[in-house]
Amino acid sequence: MRDLGAAPSLLSVNTATVRKQAGLLEIVEACARHGIAAISPWRDQVAAAGLDRAGRAIKDAGLKLSGYCRGGLVPATGEHVAAARDDNRRAVDEAATLGAPCLILVAGGLPQFARPGSMPSKDIVGARKMIEDGIAELLAHARQANLPLALEPLHPMYAADRSAVNTLAQELDIAERLDAGGTALGVAVDVYHTWWDPDLHAGIARAGRDRRLVDYHVCDWLVPTRDMLNDRGMTGDGVIDLRRIRQAVEEAGYTGFIEAEIFSDHWWSQPIDRVLATCVERYRTVV
Amino acid sequence: MRDLGAAPSLLSVNTATVRKQAGLLEIVEACARHGIAAISPWRDQVAAAGLDRAGRAIKDAGLKLSGYCRGGLVPATGEHVAAARDDNRRAVDEAATLGAPCLILVAGGLPQFARPGSMPSKDIVGARKMIEDGIAELLAHARQANLPLALEPLHPMYAADRSAVNTLAQELDIAERLDAGGTALGVAVDVYHTWWDPDLHAGIARAGRDRRLVDYHVCDWLVPTRDMLNDRGMTGDGVIDLRRIRQAVEEAGYTGFIEAEIFSDHWWSQPIDRVLATCVERYRTVV
Repeated sequence: MRDLGAAPSLLSVNTATVRKQAGLLEIVEACARHGIAAISPWRDQVAAAGLDRAGRAIKDAGLKLSGYCRGGLVPATGEHVAAARDDNRRAVDEAATLGAPCLILVAGGLPQFARPGSMPSKDIVGARKMIEDGIAELLAHARQANLPLALEPLHPMYAADRSAVNTLAQELDIAERLDAGGTALGVAVDVYHTWWDPDLHAGIARAGRDRRLVDYHVCDWLVPTRDMLNDRGMTGDGVIDLRRIRQAVEEAGYTGFIEAEIFSDHWWSQPIDRVLATCVERYRTVV
Repeated sequence: MRDLGAAPSLLSVNTATVRKQAGLLEIVEACARHGIAAISPWRDQVAAAGLDRAGRAIKDAGLKLSGYCRGGLVPATGEHVAAARDDNRRAVDEAATLGAPCLILVAGGLPQFARPGSMPSKDIVGARKMIEDGIAELLAHARQANLPLALEPLHPMYAADRSAVNTLAQELDIAERLDAGGTALGVAVDVYHTWWDPDLHAGIARAGRDRRLVDYHVCDWLVPTRDMLNDRGMTGDGVIDLRRIRQAVEEAGYTGFIEAEIFSDHWWSQPIDRVLATCVERYRTVV
């Protein structure tokens, strides 16, 4: 395993982790101040700062990117289908402009939640078909832009409203069908979404063999979890066996950043420097 | 598919559905009044009424049982190992005394949550080993008592604190290892826990082939879900494609009861007759 005890040269911070405390330019400055090597910014934060200005600020601060968040939310009906497609193409273009190594995709759940206004449905099998068709179409655009996509399986508790792609095996099956032998469609492995999976270690090994391990996200699972969306734990504060999962990911050939992504009302209420210092400390000690 | 439009002769109500409104004897009486065919009672409710008295009341009311809730919570350390084992044997004996067709098992998660006081651990792989060893031991006792066990996979959001058995495939693998070719270890399929699973239909078909479909539970998944434990939806009020899942279960050979099991602060605040009448109506119209 890689030694994380020294400078946080492999640490990336997903900018949603401190999205309530500051805008993107301030986050960039703060991450640089803490010696953090990279960030993964969100589209709304980039848009608020301006795409060009955001790109310059990241470069000037000497930060790298571990990803760009996010495209996807594919299931849709009626006029929302074309809107989703166009929106996702723009996301690819923005990621390419910023020089991001990948666009993170969150698949979307049932169409009425993925693209509000779409026809309500209970057909999760149909939603999965829409996801696969939509990603197939987006892949053509992403290949032209030379920009890998990284589909992130989300925890099954988000199957209805956020992502009907819920396991690593499911993601890798999709990638195999749409991008056989290729590296245009990778996977982002987030411990929060995948730690429970009895097939996690088999999935990580397969993702490594298939050269699809594009991004690795850490945080923690708290017991109890008081909110399904915004009660993630700071890395090390929960029950996830982080060292064992990172070992598997690195044994499978992953050499990229360790990205801290924590959606948490608690951590959003803390000063930005405290949050980032804690991310750095946990990166050194528990990841 | 079976016709559920007439009398609720295939409807069972899990007594936790109305546990805040009444004790077991009153629940038995109310279910009989609504023409409900069966119940699945909980140990604490039976204990409060007295085992013999509960058994007599169920029989006198003309109700059948679809199961007995519940054993399991296996992972433990130190003196809690023997306590868990003894507790589970008593659960088997009680189920046999009542004439229940099976004892429902919820596997348990990490030992500090399954059996409080046990040594804290983040080792979910180790917890799964404890579960399999514990069920293997309990099976010997259950076979002597001629009482099938029904292991119920729980939703992955309960992996840490309630059950580290989270998919049908995982359950069936365990059953195959511990009860190859047998029918001593079956499975309870609950739509709430399994609806998201991309391998659900394959798992149901396999469970049918292996003659392990012992119990079938319905309720619904609400969006948003405001509480991870007590915000299940009344059957038909959420996003689960109920008809499609029941069709798969029945095509796989299931001929047992449709058991309504709804943990819900909302439905616990309603009069018992309103809840039971709604269970009957939804059984007729949306299951």
